[in-house]
Amino acid sequence: MRTIRTVAELRTHLRSSRRAGRTVGLVPTMGALHDGHLALIAAAREAADEVVVSLFVNPTQFNDAGDLDAYPRTEADDAVAAADAGAHVLFAPPVAEVYPDGFASEVRVGGPLTERLEGAHRGAGHFHGVTTVVTKLLNMVGPDVAVFGAKDAQQVLVVRRLVRDLDVPVRIEVVPTVREPDGLARSSRNVRLRPEDRAVAVAIPRALDAASSLLADGERDAAAVRAAAERVLDDAGLRPEYVALADPATLAEREGALPVGPSLLAVAVPVGPVRLIDNVELVVAPSAAGADDPPSTGGLQAATAAG
Amino acid sequence: MRTIRTVAELRTHLRSSRRAGRTVGLVPTMGALHDGHLALIAAAREAADEVVVSLFVNPTQFNDAGDLDAYPRTEADDAVAAADAGAHVLFAPPVAEVYPDGFASEVRVGGPLTERLEGAHRGAGHFHGVTTVVTKLLNMVGPDVAVFGAKDAQQVLVVRRLVRDLDVPVRIEVVPTVREPDGLARSSRNVRLRPEDRAVAVAIPRALDAASSLLADGERDAAAVRAAAERVLDDAGLRPEYVALADPATLAEREGALPVGPSLLAVAVPVGPVRLIDNVELVVAPSAAGADDPPSTGGLQAATAAG
Repeated sequence: MRTIRTVAELRTHLRSSRRAGRTVGLVPTMGALHDGHLALIAAAREAADEVVVSLFVNPTQFNDAGDLDAYPRTEADDAVAAADAGAHVLFAPPVAEVYPDGFASEVRVGGPLTERLEGAHRGAGHFHGVTTVVTKLLNMVGPDVAVFGAKDAQQVLVVRRLVRDLDVPVRIEVVPTVREPDGLARSSRNVRLRPEDRAVAVAIPRALDAASSLLADGERDAAAVRAAAERVLDDAGLRPEYVALADPATLAEREGALPVGPSLLAVAVPVGPVRLIDNVELVVAPSAAGADDPPSTGGLQAATAAG
Repeated sequence: MRTIRTVAELRTHLRSSRRAGRTVGLVPTMGALHDGHLALIAAAREAADEVVVSLFVNPTQFNDAGDLDAYPRTEADDAVAAADAGAHVLFAPPVAEVYPDGFASEVRVGGPLTERLEGAHRGAGHFHGVTTVVTKLLNMVGPDVAVFGAKDAQQVLVVRRLVRDLDVPVRIEVVPTVREPDGLARSSRNVRLRPEDRAVAVAIPRALDAASSLLADGERDAAAVRAAAERVLDDAGLRPEYVALADPATLAEREGALPVGPSLLAVAVPVGPVRLIDNVELVVAPSAAGADDPPSTGGLQAATAAG
């Protein structure tokens, strides 16, 4: 695996790959690679001949300077992990290569997709930072496929909208969330959890599980399903920023009876010094007309198995 | 020449061109093709094997609904002209193909480049409309080179910034303004000039000429050079929106003595029902230490000759 720092060198390298007829997959990361990232790299290897892992802690998507400073930076370990996972290129540009002097552009997805959930709590600027850097990375690499993780469900939605709206010629692939044995979603921020935080954090996947179970038991009322998740967090002494049960296409909050099809249960929860997010898709099966006909859940269990 | 209406068909067509090793040039237009556009197409033919002329009257860059409605639409004639000029594809998508339901994205260049001159008078939204549709067209076509006209000097500056900032893998080429025999810059809007407007409109290139001549005579004071242009417009009874003499990289207004190198003299002038823009580059030669050493002007004369 080669580590590349500049766009010019990256393009020279990829030009010869393309001439050789090789397809290219991109896995955008902010480093601190964990099993979740390795699942993305594995998916990219399935989907393309050559895999570029980008490692860039993008300052413009951090609403909180403290969070940016505290974000783990472990490039030497990341290079070993990416190479072991079969990546061909680690693209790790310095900030000045990505945002040179005079940089003045921004790519925005407007409206509810960036205003709700993470947008409401981190500010819409968070997603403008994401869409700008993703557009740049897609233009730098020109991949056939780019792979994202389902843990960042809203980000996936926003990136899909971006790619469709701006006619970016790339296929977006989404890989299920990878979890610890106790269910906690893998995240680069987990390393910042103190032992006492780590013990409490398991309440997050348990909250999602509680909602899934209630749905599986036949409950259809959105407020009741949401409350099941809230109760678990509350019992653990956690104060979520949000517990949203929403339309997975528009992020509009569900009210009343859940419709047939998928709904997105998404949470953001501060645990000690760390803000964690997680989500699960809850699916009401088409045939499920009443409480006696348990729905399938395309959620946590399935995702855990896939991870 | 083929006329193509959808992105899918365009990509299929270009894929086979690329497989055959042909490079692609894009000439983005809003139709109503005139000699200025034909010069762009000729430049694209020089620069690439296959030339795509896009024809799309982009609603999002019109700040004035009346201007959008009145914008000339002459696709049948345009197709003949583009084919005669050697274009291979006329890409003329309907609005719904470019902005489908749910479209929510915007590409912005922020700061002085879009806030000054046209941005100040048409609103920054004008350029956001331009940069969004140019990004889309570049993504749809994936050209090796895209060709723009020098008449829209600020647009060229903004597009160059966009391409650099977002790492769009395309070369931008700029073609000098093509003029009528009396000097009026060719514009799709000229057809809307009534005969009495057309007679007056010649004051615009004469104003630029007057400033160029004054500079050639040794004048270095920015205010004096600007005033020379303003006087010609005023004498013709025209009320310009702006007469700017600016740094061509930042559009910051020149004050005091003009520095060595190029300055941009740009004007926007309503003539009857039509708003016209024009510009010329004024160059103070490096050796010109004083008024006795006349500078070269890289401006109107040179551009007229090239057109």
